[in-house]
Amino acid sequence: MADLTDEELSALDAHWRAANYLAAGQIYLLGNPLLTEPLRPEHIKPRLLGHWGTSPGLNLVYTHLNRVIRRRGPDVLCVWGPGHGGPAVLANAWLEGSYTETCPDVTRDAEGMARLFRQFSFPGGVPSHVAPETPGSIHEGGELGYSLAHAYGAAFDNPDLLVACVIGDGEAETGPLAASWHSNKFLDPVHDGAVLPILHLNGYKIANPTVLARLPEHELDRLLHGYGHHPLHVSGDDPAEVHRALAAALDTALDHIADIHRTARAEGIADRPSWPVIVLRTPKGWTGPAEADGLPVEGTWRAHQVPLAGVRENPEHLRQLEAWLRSYRPDELFDADGRPVPRVLACVPDGPRRPGATPHANGGLLLRELPLPPLERHAVRVDAPGAALHEPTRVLGGLLADVMAATADRRDFRLVGPDETASNRLDAVLDVTDKAWQAGVLPVDEHLGRHGRVMEVLSEHLCQGWLEGYLLTGRHGLFSSYEAFVHIVDSMVNQHIKWLRVSRRLPWRRPVASLNYLLTSHVWRQDHNGFSHQDPGFVDHVLNKSPEVVRVYLPPDANTLLCVADHVLRSRDHVNVVVAGKQPCFDWLGLEEARAHCARGAGIWEWAGTEDGRREPDAVLACAGDVPTQEALAAAQLIRRHLPGLAVRVVNVVDLARLMPHEEHPHGMPDHEFDALFTRDRPVVFAYHGYPWLIHRLAYRRAVHPNLHVRGYKESGTTTTPFDMVVRNDLDRYRLVMDVVDRVPGLAVGAARVRQAMADLRTRHHAWIREHGTDLPEVADWRWDAG
Amino acid sequence: MADLTDEELSALDAHWRAANYLAAGQIYLLGNPLLTEPLRPEHIKPRLLGHWGTSPGLNLVYTHLNRVIRRRGPDVLCVWGPGHGGPAVLANAWLEGSYTETCPDVTRDAEGMARLFRQFSFPGGVPSHVAPETPGSIHEGGELGYSLAHAYGAAFDNPDLLVACVIGDGEAETGPLAASWHSNKFLDPVHDGAVLPILHLNGYKIANPTVLARLPEHELDRLLHGYGHHPLHVSGDDPAEVHRALAAALDTALDHIADIHRTARAEGIADRPSWPVIVLRTPKGWTGPAEADGLPVEGTWRAHQVPLAGVRENPEHLRQLEAWLRSYRPDELFDADGRPVPRVLACVPDGPRRPGATPHANGGLLLRELPLPPLERHAVRVDAPGAALHEPTRVLGGLLADVMAATADRRDFRLVGPDETASNRLDAVLDVTDKAWQAGVLPVDEHLGRHGRVMEVLSEHLCQGWLEGYLLTGRHGLFSSYEAFVHIVDSMVNQHIKWLRVSRRLPWRRPVASLNYLLTSHVWRQDHNGFSHQDPGFVDHVLNKSPEVVRVYLPPDANTLLCVADHVLRSRDHVNVVVAGKQPCFDWLGLEEARAHCARGAGIWEWAGTEDGRREPDAVLACAGDVPTQEALAAAQLIRRHLPGLAVRVVNVVDLARLMPHEEHPHGMPDHEFDALFTRDRPVVFAYHGYPWLIHRLAYRRAVHPNLHVRGYKESGTTTTPFDMVVRNDLDRYRLVMDVVDRVPGLAVGAARVRQAMADLRTRHHAWIREHGTDLPEVADWRWDAG
Repeated sequence: MADLTDEELSALDAHWRAANYLAAGQIYLLGNPLLTEPLRPEHIKPRLLGHWGTSPGLNLVYTHLNRVIRRRGPDVLCVWGPGHGGPAVLANAWLEGSYTETCPDVTRDAEGMARLFRQFSFPGGVPSHVAPETPGSIHEGGELGYSLAHAYGAAFDNPDLLVACVIGDGEAETGPLAASWHSNKFLDPVHDGAVLPILHLNGYKIANPTVLARLPEHELDRLLHGYGHHPLHVSGDDPAEVHRALAAALDTALDHIADIHRTARAEGIADRPSWPVIVLRTPKGWTGPAEADGLPVEGTWRAHQVPLAGVRENPEHLRQLEAWLRSYRPDELFDADGRPVPRVLACVPDGPRRPGATPHANGGLLLRELPLPPLERHAVRVDAPGAALHEPTRVLGGLLADVMAATADRRDFRLVGPDETASNRLDAVLDVTDKAWQAGVLPVDEHLGRHGRVMEVLSEHLCQGWLEGYLLTGRHGLFSSYEAFVHIVDSMVNQHIKWLRVSRRLPWRRPVASLNYLLTSHVWRQDHNGFSHQDPGFVDHVLNKSPEVVRVYLPPDANTLLCVADHVLRSRDHVNVVVAGKQPCFDWLGLEEARAHCARGAGIWEWAGTEDGRREPDAVLACAGDVPTQEALAAAQLIRRHLPGLAVRVVNVVDLARLMPHEEHPHGMPDHEFDALFTRDRPVVFAYHGYPWLIHRLAYRRAVHPNLHVRGYKESGTTTTPFDMVVRNDLDRYRLVMDVVDRVPGLAVGAARVRQAMADLRTRHHAWIREHGTDLPEVADWRWDAG
Repeated sequence: MADLTDEELSALDAHWRAANYLAAGQIYLLGNPLLTEPLRPEHIKPRLLGHWGTSPGLNLVYTHLNRVIRRRGPDVLCVWGPGHGGPAVLANAWLEGSYTETCPDVTRDAEGMARLFRQFSFPGGVPSHVAPETPGSIHEGGELGYSLAHAYGAAFDNPDLLVACVIGDGEAETGPLAASWHSNKFLDPVHDGAVLPILHLNGYKIANPTVLARLPEHELDRLLHGYGHHPLHVSGDDPAEVHRALAAALDTALDHIADIHRTARAEGIADRPSWPVIVLRTPKGWTGPAEADGLPVEGTWRAHQVPLAGVRENPEHLRQLEAWLRSYRPDELFDADGRPVPRVLACVPDGPRRPGATPHANGGLLLRELPLPPLERHAVRVDAPGAALHEPTRVLGGLLADVMAATADRRDFRLVGPDETASNRLDAVLDVTDKAWQAGVLPVDEHLGRHGRVMEVLSEHLCQGWLEGYLLTGRHGLFSSYEAFVHIVDSMVNQHIKWLRVSRRLPWRRPVASLNYLLTSHVWRQDHNGFSHQDPGFVDHVLNKSPEVVRVYLPPDANTLLCVADHVLRSRDHVNVVVAGKQPCFDWLGLEEARAHCARGAGIWEWAGTEDGRREPDAVLACAGDVPTQEALAAAQLIRRHLPGLAVRVVNVVDLARLMPHEEHPHGMPDHEFDALFTRDRPVVFAYHGYPWLIHRLAYRRAVHPNLHVRGYKESGTTTTPFDMVVRNDLDRYRLVMDVVDRVPGLAVGAARVRQAMADLRTRHHAWIREHGTDLPEVADWRWDAG
């Protein structure tokens, strides 16, 4: 660590002033970018949008990160938690040239500067937040809460990477961020890189002070020590002092991190280290207008968005803006052509070490194909449909274990989940790798290890945030979750889908591995946990989002789950939701049939129906999901036995988006395909895994829709037996037979008797379960029999 | 504080043993509840379900809370974070008699004990978690994460209440819980009660150690000090020692709390205090089987659910179970009739001071009508539809300010939101009360105060958790949120809806005030923030849930918002979602018309259409939401002007559930009403606020559905102008006119010209906005004109 020379300080300050000038310019200026003439109203944007308040702090950190990268040479990825400070990050990317490399028409000269200013928050331009459009970013800072989890996700298995993560004191109040501090208990100093949190206390949110900024410093220090960090404080409002202090703090932090890595890697010391954290206290809206309309602005929440709002109409505001912009002395920072002068760029590193040019922020550049085993190695043998049972997720666990083994050296695959890998029966992976754990280990513990690649923490937010960071930096993974509780990350997956949707449209962003969910311990099998654990609505949530990104799969058995898993693990730029049970489930399809079925996404199961070669069936029994498939097949068997004249077609749907019009989803079937499966006019009784109306929402444009009758979960949940759950929700085999009988016109008289028999069986179920607390023996012992 | 006498200790231990016996009995026993005969397989439940691991710890805490209540007399509400330890809380409620008071057939004798055992996790019985069915609870512990926020919500404005909150070390890893620790920055020692967190470190989650349990004690202490707490440690596995230490710690904590209250209330000292927290370290599954099948169980994660799983089939397990159960010496705890002996009950307090009998956990008992002002006081004057503009949420702010003023002494109304009360233009309330804030206040701060009832924290999780706790203890409130980010609490609102659904069916649970959301800063007006802030899907999420609980309102202007707010603030046991903009919006209805319109929930706006008394219109232009209503009216005006022969009906929908079949939602319209509004066969062009397919999902059973064409948000978002947003999503007035023209058969030749003119205007919009960055003047200056 060395003190800054005056020359270094002056150059850093020049860079910072240039970035501040460019940030303010983006918010205000439509013309006259270099202030070569007096500022006039017509130079001002008609709509003043953006967030100034956080920008000077982000500019300060960017400037100083430039310095340490240039001087010390680490690979640095920046995560800008206060991402609504988009103007700052764009300003820096423009200064370092990475912006022009991704957007060639925004050149590093006066014309490009004018474009940079104009496009910001301008219709057809770039958003006001750090976004996929921003080079060097893997993080949209709009929603707030996920920066630190993203940073850790990026650092895992990137041993030479330093992730600098700026956390706003607003964001620090959120739950996900509060939980993220403990991510350091999962960071392996040997195989993982480092995360340097920079907690920026500018004191205010939109309209309030922040909790952390108003803690006494000793209390904040205790908190950060309690999080396992060693705090380094930088405070002030004098630029020169703050420059010196921040440069020193960054040097100290990087020395400390290097020391941790050396100790762990060379000396093999394995105590969990105390990692540095920088606490940076500078005024909100620093260097902006001290006051406006007689009220203080700089250093207050009033600096949050646009500090001078009336610039076009109010000459005093215009005058203040001009004075503010000129206070950065743009003529010293840019030459006559608008190019940054050498002194401004003195601190900027070269090539891919520039924060805006790191390939880690464009993970597709680094992505390698995942080594997936041949499915034959894990497929279950199916001599006949329904002849045997397997736990689908356990079978999948074998495949995942192979992937873990094949990536043992590459270390680019991780499994995340909230403490449920074993409970969800994926524990074969634990024969190959451990659960990541940096704290103490007791003799009774199993499968905990410092270098493990299974991540278990009781926080879906952390699982999601870590995995997003891991994927966006070019690696692979899977999130296994209880189905109901994945709603905890509804909002996070929204943001990730938005990120992917925008990224797919940017030519310079390379495709990344998809975010894959395995939703298990699903609604139909919450024997232990009951109503609070019953919610199949994540599928509904996801299917509202960009169709180019979202995919939903409901494999009905073990081999179809393998095929789906193979597909989603190879896919790019998607969010794949796979719903599959962990309980024993009949094997319906052999591997080859499963492959063909999954490739189609939906198909007729001739062996299960009673069509017998006739042109059109009397009715269609459709199903999607493992439990509904079992009930539909049991219903088909009852129909075969008791209504021998009835021609019923069984259709199974694996890929739910196949039901959508193909104009609305890339997987959607054209009408002729849909009609060939479901007919145009026959009754369709559809047994669906989740909320029944979702099927209507997907299929409402189809010809057969008026005849579509869907059964599914309708919030009749409790702690009960598996069969009682389906009866309570009218999804059971007996009800499905009744539904078919009710809907096929002109059935023989005998049909009414069959219907009554089904109703009687439901009554018998109710009586039996009240007495025994178990399912009817004929249900518990049921086996498929096509005879 | 006094040391326990041997007699006291023995009585406490007897209570604890009794509770442990009853908890284990619920998991295992179908018969032989008092072990009056040797245990045989037929005494064992056929399905062994439930969570033993956390139960002994909860029993210990319940036992000791009984002691301090009985001895010191505070009003105590318990929040059992590890609520999956249902058997423990049920056991204690049965022992103290509160269980029999709510479920009279579960008597406090052998027969009742047998019922208590049998019903647990038995079909038709009670769930395995602490749930609405559990007396004394406001908290379902299944999802984990919300206990501490619920506890604070209960404590706000309950100055004499102590909320004891057990936090499991698994739950402590979640984001919401991690954020909740800072709730003490919002707790007013004068008007609020106290929260005593009891962090129970039993060391393990389902399959892993927990992060906090493996922190060195000095690091955990720093963390808790950093959270603003003073830790009191109780550790051990020797019952007598732990009894003594826990009793002492509780006495110390209650003395400390009493001291804080006295200092604040009598001496007026206003420094934020350091509140006590108890850290309790006892083994998971304490007193259960030390091992099973040769593997350690007690004190490990293997004790999480059912420690001996093969009791019916495995004689060794049966023997172990019997030894385990007899280790509690049930014959010393229960008399021959199965009644708890006096020594067991010696620590139990009386009447409503029993934790299972506190009225605070059945908040409807304490609920008072909210004093709402006459709407006339706040209604805007409407001389003619569209003649003036108001910001609807600002108008609502006036009403809320009145409610705040009227409850200034009662203190039973709070407004929560993530730092957006002013941004959402509800700031009139701040003239009446402050934003709650216990930290330091600087001269520049505004509206911060120790006694404020506006709660702002940048955590939707805290807002939601606090408000749930506040409502469930019998008070009123409103949550105002950015529309997009309310998804952050999707999962929490799921759980609250489930809670209300079950509570409504329990005769002893009294109705509580509804949970009311004001979703503003909505999808159509994210001028500053763009795509990341655009998501109208919360409505979809909520409408999947129990129809007896959920309601969705989309008031189109200021007066309808007032009427809706008045309605939802008076309602009980609902989750009401109100979507309303904060930007200036045309006033369409005067107060009386608004009242009538909101009472119907949907209605024809004759003044806006062109029906002219004909029997059936040529087309229906329907709308729901403020922005869609404006576009629909602008389209109606264009039709009036340019297609004078066309009879268009304008229908506005405020109460979205009105569209549903009335068999599926209590607000659903019968078909004849629906048809009278929307016709059975005319083209309906529906301009909807959110995802368009939601309207199809609600209305797919209606006769007119094949002719229903819905426009809404389809994820075409960015930072742009208000009109560009509707154009991008095909919801604009010009597109709506084109939709009508496209769907009405047999229009005159002129219609094609009109359609082309509309298409040209869209093209003109695109060119204009590219150049100017603003909306077309004719759109920006548009006014309703029925002439």
